[in-house]
Amino acid sequence: MKNHPPTPTPASLIEARYGKTHPFGAALPEFNKTLETLLAHRSVRSFMETPLPSGTLECLIAAAQSAPSSCNLQMWSVVAVEDSARKARLADYAGQQRHIKQAPALLIFLTDMAMLHETATAEKVSIDGIDYLDTFLMAAIDATLAAQNVATAAESMGFGTVYAGAIRNQPEDVVHELNLPLHVFPIFGLCIGYPDPERPAQIKPRLPQRAVLHHEQYSNHDTRQAIADYDVTMAAFYRAYREAGATWSKQSLARLRDPESLAGRDRLREAVLKQSILLK
Amino acid sequence: MKNHPPTPTPASLIEARYGKTHPFGAALPEFNKTLETLLAHRSVRSFMETPLPSGTLECLIAAAQSAPSSCNLQMWSVVAVEDSARKARLADYAGQQRHIKQAPALLIFLTDMAMLHETATAEKVSIDGIDYLDTFLMAAIDATLAAQNVATAAESMGFGTVYAGAIRNQPEDVVHELNLPLHVFPIFGLCIGYPDPERPAQIKPRLPQRAVLHHEQYSNHDTRQAIADYDVTMAAFYRAYREAGATWSKQSLARLRDPESLAGRDRLREAVLKQSILLK
Repeated sequence: MKNHPPTPTPASLIEARYGKTHPFGAALPEFNKTLETLLAHRSVRSFMETPLPSGTLECLIAAAQSAPSSCNLQMWSVVAVEDSARKARLADYAGQQRHIKQAPALLIFLTDMAMLHETATAEKVSIDGIDYLDTFLMAAIDATLAAQNVATAAESMGFGTVYAGAIRNQPEDVVHELNLPLHVFPIFGLCIGYPDPERPAQIKPRLPQRAVLHHEQYSNHDTRQAIADYDVTMAAFYRAYREAGATWSKQSLARLRDPESLAGRDRLREAVLKQSILLK
Repeated sequence: MKNHPPTPTPASLIEARYGKTHPFGAALPEFNKTLETLLAHRSVRSFMETPLPSGTLECLIAAAQSAPSSCNLQMWSVVAVEDSARKARLADYAGQQRHIKQAPALLIFLTDMAMLHETATAEKVSIDGIDYLDTFLMAAIDATLAAQNVATAAESMGFGTVYAGAIRNQPEDVVHELNLPLHVFPIFGLCIGYPDPERPAQIKPRLPQRAVLHHEQYSNHDTRQAIADYDVTMAAFYRAYREAGATWSKQSLARLRDPESLAGRDRLREAVLKQSILLK
């Protein structure tokens, strides 16, 4: 019982999210369960073996399809992977992340222009507009809106989730593993399962709200100070949970230092083009 | 009273989403308010004038920042526009969409690499890894995860929302209007306000689930039939709410016919590069 966390309140969730008390001046509006689910998010990387109960996946995908879609083009689809051997191979392609293998369900979200290409062929019309960067961006946005609905729905049902962008480290291997046709590209994974209660995840503090919320026009007059404040917050967070000496600035700049620090993703453009997704 | 819609049930929401009874065989899991909010989504394009109550925007952005972020890089920010004249100009740049002008709050979501560029300059390090397509995609995914949390949070509080991808029709004008610095790009807008009860929005049916959900590997053996079924569903939807003779296939293929049908977005790549966001 002593490890049982206290019931969160709106104020406690928002304070955890910013790593400080009263992070902004505004009074909070009335709370509801959905707000609580969203604000209580933390990425879960330790899962129980229990598979998703029957009907869960279909319900999650109905939530995904309820997300908005640009011009209703619905240029996304998803592969649900539950087979252990396949999850293990995909984990290998994605930086050997243990939780990808461990989660009972791994959803690989895809930008999917194959459905429209197939339709165009059947209707004998050309769709040259599909070959532009904007169309790939639309598809990626659609897939992401859908995925975030899955994550929110899953967390409201008591599951834990974590995204796996590392699916883009070796995209050709993922394309082969999932038998993806031309015009389809894997943009990220989403791991879903019951969280291991022995290894509870923490809410990660984010940048001060004043760094990301602008009014009427963009203003960066306070950005440096906001980031300096955040580095202090995150240094304390890393000390408690991970490593001493780290700050957000140092970690983020290291992640983007050079092409080698991208863990293979400097090749993304090449891999997208191989799928006949042009980026004009 | 006679126009008051019946209280939705899980089954009725899912049936509306697919435009048919019992759209898939699985039994539904236990419902909750968050699932109901997600499944009940419909894009609202008619708003009341009532502004967002004090504290609402801050709460919505706290929900946005609670969304996952790739490597915690947080490469997004947002401009909240409430000034009528500015909203009117932005609506002009975005295909003269009336609801952009009418909604009391318009959030323009930005991919934001300026914060990390500024940090790198201050720390005197180079971040050549930021110049790759994957980094722009990461930023776009982060911004979209954040935006969808705002949409879900807002809908849970009784607001209506609609995305405005048309913000990308004339991106340079939006960049100028919002005074965006280099390394920052507007990827879409999100309109928020109380829905006009006189003009209720409808749940739009989506593709059959079997077209978008694959198990273990991608399979397109049934896609053509699923799209044919959906064309029938959508023809009925369009007849009831918009125009006769339209199908999803026809409308979607027309939207992607050629560069001209992209309403300016064939220039996206050029506009992104102008912001010194490279796409190597």
